[in-house]
Amino acid sequence: MKLNAPYLILIGEEEDSTYAKTGQGIVQWRPELVAGQLRFSGCQVDMGVPDMTVDEAVSQGVRSLIIGVAPIGGIIPDNWWNVITDAANQGLDIVNGLHLKLKDYPKVVEAASQSDSRLIDIRVPPKNLPVGTGMKRLGRRLLTVGTDCAVGKKYTALALDKSMREAGMNSTFRATGQTGIIIVGAGIPIDAIKADFISGAAEMLSPDNTADHWDVIEGQGTLFHPGYSGVSLGLLHGSQPDAFVVCHDATRKVISGWEHYPLPSIGECIEMHTQLGQRTNPDISCVGISINTSGLPTDKREKYLNNLQMETGLPCIDPLMDGCGIIVDNLNEIFN
Amino acid sequence: MKLNAPYLILIGEEEDSTYAKTGQGIVQWRPELVAGQLRFSGCQVDMGVPDMTVDEAVSQGVRSLIIGVAPIGGIIPDNWWNVITDAANQGLDIVNGLHLKLKDYPKVVEAASQSDSRLIDIRVPPKNLPVGTGMKRLGRRLLTVGTDCAVGKKYTALALDKSMREAGMNSTFRATGQTGIIIVGAGIPIDAIKADFISGAAEMLSPDNTADHWDVIEGQGTLFHPGYSGVSLGLLHGSQPDAFVVCHDATRKVISGWEHYPLPSIGECIEMHTQLGQRTNPDISCVGISINTSGLPTDKREKYLNNLQMETGLPCIDPLMDGCGIIVDNLNEIFN
Repeated sequence: MKLNAPYLILIGEEEDSTYAKTGQGIVQWRPELVAGQLRFSGCQVDMGVPDMTVDEAVSQGVRSLIIGVAPIGGIIPDNWWNVITDAANQGLDIVNGLHLKLKDYPKVVEAASQSDSRLIDIRVPPKNLPVGTGMKRLGRRLLTVGTDCAVGKKYTALALDKSMREAGMNSTFRATGQTGIIIVGAGIPIDAIKADFISGAAEMLSPDNTADHWDVIEGQGTLFHPGYSGVSLGLLHGSQPDAFVVCHDATRKVISGWEHYPLPSIGECIEMHTQLGQRTNPDISCVGISINTSGLPTDKREKYLNNLQMETGLPCIDPLMDGCGIIVDNLNEIFN
Repeated sequence: MKLNAPYLILIGEEEDSTYAKTGQGIVQWRPELVAGQLRFSGCQVDMGVPDMTVDEAVSQGVRSLIIGVAPIGGIIPDNWWNVITDAANQGLDIVNGLHLKLKDYPKVVEAASQSDSRLIDIRVPPKNLPVGTGMKRLGRRLLTVGTDCAVGKKYTALALDKSMREAGMNSTFRATGQTGIIIVGAGIPIDAIKADFISGAAEMLSPDNTADHWDVIEGQGTLFHPGYSGVSLGLLHGSQPDAFVVCHDATRKVISGWEHYPLPSIGECIEMHTQLGQRTNPDISCVGISINTSGLPTDKREKYLNNLQMETGLPCIDPLMDGCGIIVDNLNEIFN
């Protein structure tokens, strides 16, 4: 899968940055490929890149329109389709990471075929996936897990992989969601896999490797999520992680979008992942905690992390403040 | 979905009755609809109905060939396709509960279109499933769970539903697998659902109901299964069961087909389902244990169940020996 850059990222009238995480992930990790954002009036999200219409994008040489939101259930509002069709008409590739398939929208298909642009559905799982075998594979694996969706599992995995490679380790980021797949150009959209094959897909994503190699696997959802827990458990069992990092948002109290569900504590989250993860890797252990502290007052962030570190005895970071160095150090200490 | 009876059930050369559970379930619960079984030489499974070729079946008025096995991964051996194609040629409907789709096999499609017979794929999930909301629904729910696959979850749910209705209770069996769906003609093939929508599908399967109504939901897989745990957790969270019954095979020591994985103990199974199930229903409780004792010597069966009952304090039955009466009594005691 090779996407044509530069990109225009469609955010629409999204009010909650939580749901613009596809767009924001691309801006964070591939800023050199992003020309602008397309926002409708009322949009509360700003990714800090130039606002641009489809016409402006075309005149500036943009080559792909990427749908940059991931709303619950993955439904695109009707009024967006006009913009998407217009972009396809004007020759932009359309890149879609939602569950829906662009080929099911005849106007878009017609527009793309007339202009010879491409319709790219990221969330199409590989065919003929196996059922998970539970067999031990060579090499080591780290999985980022979380107390909720959208708490930094992808960001933390990308940052860890970067730090590990900078430290001379042999590691590969393994994408399991649309944004990660767009960022690195490979991966398996684990939440689009048929239920019987979730852990089989996870096994395929991090195959046998050399003994010193680390797969750094992007987690999905949370075991505590009333909607997505099955994805998280299948991914945990199939990944057979030797190590996991818990991701959490310091100010979040309830499951985002499921406000009648309280967030689990970090302690519960460590305990549950250890208990369930031991089924396919008896040696699983938590090696660090990654916190999004951006909602805390600036002068409280360090104290929050220090307190958490004292409570848990684990390295606690905000990857945007501190990088992942102390978690990588811990990993090296435990596994060498 | 209305199937045309009588049925011929294709078992092929299956050596392990565990994998012939679709055929056996139909024979057990709809014997009046089954004309015979089609077995190849070397077949170790006998469902106790007449052996029959396709030609014999046609001459005896059989109207459907049902694929009666559920092998790991759902792959049909190549040599079976000749028989299936022959049956379609001769006008039998073909009923398939595996993940594969009959329409993907051109010879079968051609044979069926020439004879005007139907190709029926049971394991096609409904379209536009929602993500699970985790919202409490009215009415009560019982889920059968297990220490492994193929330990009697479907049988127990069907037997419980029957006992409950005989006791004057208001209950409905909810099928989640191909055999259950073929038996009752309705249900959702939960293991064929895209991972993000497992618990949403489970919520749809047991919708709001009257306060006195019980949904008796067929469990799938087990939380302890290295291949299928994601299905089991999504189904548990979406079903929000008030009550669950643990199903177990008295002689099984390892996960069937995954012999490097020991079976969990019944105690671990109760504990894990209670702990995880509380997330969407804080009042969940185990109300009984259903054991397949057929592998034990006849004179040991009662003692096994008595010992288990003393250990756990729960009603323990073999539904084929004792029926489900004492579990239904316990249910009435707890929930009235």
